[in-house]
Amino acid sequence: MNPDEPLPGEQALAWLDAHAEERRRAGLARQLRPRAPGSDLLDLAGNDYLGLARDKRVGGAAAAATLRWGTGATGSRLVTGSTELHSELEFELARFCGVQAALVFSSGFTANLAAVTALSGRNCSIVTDANIHASLIDGCRLSRAELAVVAHKDVAAATRALASKRTERAVYVTDSVFSVDGDIAPLPELHAACRAHGAALIVDDAHGLGVLGEGGRGAVHAAGLAGEPDVVTTVTLSKSLGAQGGAVLGPRKVIRHLVDNARSFIFDTGLAPGSAAAALSALTVLKEEPERAEKVLTNAMTLSVRLREAGLQVGEPASAVVSVRAPSAEAALTWSEDCRSAGVWVGCFRPPSVPDSVSRLRLTARADLSEADIDRAVEVITKTAP
Amino acid sequence: MNPDEPLPGEQALAWLDAHAEERRRAGLARQLRPRAPGSDLLDLAGNDYLGLARDKRVGGAAAAATLRWGTGATGSRLVTGSTELHSELEFELARFCGVQAALVFSSGFTANLAAVTALSGRNCSIVTDANIHASLIDGCRLSRAELAVVAHKDVAAATRALASKRTERAVYVTDSVFSVDGDIAPLPELHAACRAHGAALIVDDAHGLGVLGEGGRGAVHAAGLAGEPDVVTTVTLSKSLGAQGGAVLGPRKVIRHLVDNARSFIFDTGLAPGSAAAALSALTVLKEEPERAEKVLTNAMTLSVRLREAGLQVGEPASAVVSVRAPSAEAALTWSEDCRSAGVWVGCFRPPSVPDSVSRLRLTARADLSEADIDRAVEVITKTAP
Ligand SMILES: Cc1ncc(COP(=O)(O)O)c(C=O)c1O
Ligand SMILES: Cc1ncc(COP(=O)(O)O)c(C=O)c1O
Repeated sequence: MNPDEPLPGEQALAWLDAHAEERRRAGLARQLRPRAPGSDLLDLAGNDYLGLARDKRVGGAAAAATLRWGTGATGSRLVTGSTELHSELEFELARFCGVQAALVFSSGFTANLAAVTALSGRNCSIVTDANIHASLIDGCRLSRAELAVVAHKDVAAATRALASKRTERAVYVTDSVFSVDGDIAPLPELHAACRAHGAALIVDDAHGLGVLGEGGRGAVHAAGLAGEPDVVTTVTLSKSLGAQGGAVLGPRKVIRHLVDNARSFIFDTGLAPGSAAAALSALTVLKEEPERAEKVLTNAMTLSVRLREAGLQVGEPASAVVSVRAPSAEAALTWSEDCRSAGVWVGCFRPPSVPDSVSRLRLTARADLSEADIDRAVEVITKTAP
Repeated sequence: MNPDEPLPGEQALAWLDAHAEERRRAGLARQLRPRAPGSDLLDLAGNDYLGLARDKRVGGAAAAATLRWGTGATGSRLVTGSTELHSELEFELARFCGVQAALVFSSGFTANLAAVTALSGRNCSIVTDANIHASLIDGCRLSRAELAVVAHKDVAAATRALASKRTERAVYVTDSVFSVDGDIAPLPELHAACRAHGAALIVDDAHGLGVLGEGGRGAVHAAGLAGEPDVVTTVTLSKSLGAQGGAVLGPRKVIRHLVDNARSFIFDTGLAPGSAAAALSALTVLKEEPERAEKVLTNAMTLSVRLREAGLQVGEPASAVVSVRAPSAEAALTWSEDCRSAGVWVGCFRPPSVPDSVSRLRLTARADLSEADIDRAVEVITKTAP
């Protein structure tokens, strides 16, 4: 056999090699870097905003539920996969966020797919902000609805798009807090536009829950929109609530509709009992210690002020996310690597993962950052700056 | 205000009422029925085939990992969400199934979205069996590939479709074990057709892992296709492994490609450490007690023979699933309700969830069913038969 000839069967996926080589050349190859337990890196990269993923109460509740209910839900929520733990979590989430009902999913990703697809469809228009989360975009792609994308946070453009819809129904889809920069959608104005044109508003509050609003009730609550009959909120249990899973919150009839129609609910195994218990326990902690939510924002503000004083280009944080501009994609990568070598773990966002092709460090504030943590973060980030 | 007039904002989602009423009239409204802990229903409805979701070793490992690693992964696998636990699970899954590499997802659903979308795309044709799982269908819809659906298990039709592709690349997508009836795809023949036409084969082995093949290595392994360079397998951790999550298994370059490109991997929080530990522990149990896999099949066979002897229309099981025909959708529903009232929990599949509009009871055998359990199941299902 000619050594240059591919082995039988190699041909089908041979294109992956060229594709990988292209990415490597463009500096876009990604690498998994598994962490060890008890690493002493200062974590400014994760989304555990309230510091509850390692809280003893939350961990204890999850461990106990795992032993009591089993390690898996064992089936779709519609067959064997609904436990009383899932219902309790749904009840408490709905009550906390001020809505009629909630439905828990295996992830925020599948919750978003469900909300967008089941509430739109062929005779519906979807208008979206240009910077929405990938899972919402995939929901839009799956929806078979007419799609219109408008400029980031542009209420006038959103209003025009809703006004000119040619379908019977319409929904506007947006993040509350945009994940890259942590900036906030103009929810009251968007809701008014929706109301004026008979459209529903779907808001992904993944980064708002636990951080914004009274006691961390989220950006939708903060905007006074919780409980509105034309507003549907999605959240994740994997950020402030330190667990895994997602939920859709809204009018009872929306939840009933999702149970009957949402493919990523019906054809997916229910959330593991341990994760449901963790989220439920984290919610209890948040209710008992509402100051945690505020502390996230204070810490984000302190970080941003201190970094700006040190001469860096830092946005004014509106959420847990502090965004620091880098001069180039390469500089951003080196900077974040240098931070990590010096013990501070920060996120690095480069094209194509940024909406405006500006590379940046993405820092996330946590409620449990100490003053010493912040001092250390500022020192390292400043010293390693390009 | 006129009491007949809807409240402001009610209009946007008013269509849900009519939709719900239609489903109710058609007998299609679904209901969540949360179970209590320690229910004494005999479970023939879930997918915990090996009985490991309540195994003390598996539960203990999950609880310990939750306390050690935290209740959540805290971020995308590409940022803070990869732990050494995830890598270990990936290594062990790959080794057990006889492939180069594996990548763990938050669900089988998101694993399927990832495999199908990242391995196809615009210049690719996807040929699929008509009865594939909803998550694979959604992957196809998201893929932007040319789609061709062929009749269930029709190798000749699959071959023709692959031969007539007008794109550069092609993949064939199928379940190994089809979830409704538990019947098995002709994997060797499909693979030969793929090989002949330079296509890759993507197999969802959700119901094969832990049940089929040597020691539960799955249907792909049983077909002699593990490790082939043009075969990609997806599995779920939520059935035989009693946990939550999913994985893609295949050549190393496929895994690397998914890390770089799969949206449902990149933009999703990593699997909760407790669920990863549960799956890892279940895998260890299965390796130590390979007879569990065979026991599932023996129990399925016993159930089917006994029910057929009792005069019911029962398919010959090829996996854990035993499918029992019902004369009508209404009869199937009443039958399953009567079983449940008598203490035996069975699945009920009716249109539109069945491929051929034949309603049936769907029973799943578990490795840990006792003879008394089987006696009780046969008695109740026979006595309540329409
Ligand atoms: C805005 C937003 N929505 C949805 C998700 C998905 O949630 P999950 O990771 O729980 O699946 C994420 C992050 O992962 C997110 O940042
Ligand atoms: C054939 C098949 N594939 C994929 C899935 C999805 O896996 P998961 O429930 O772990 O998301 C399921 C069941 O839920 C299934 O039956």
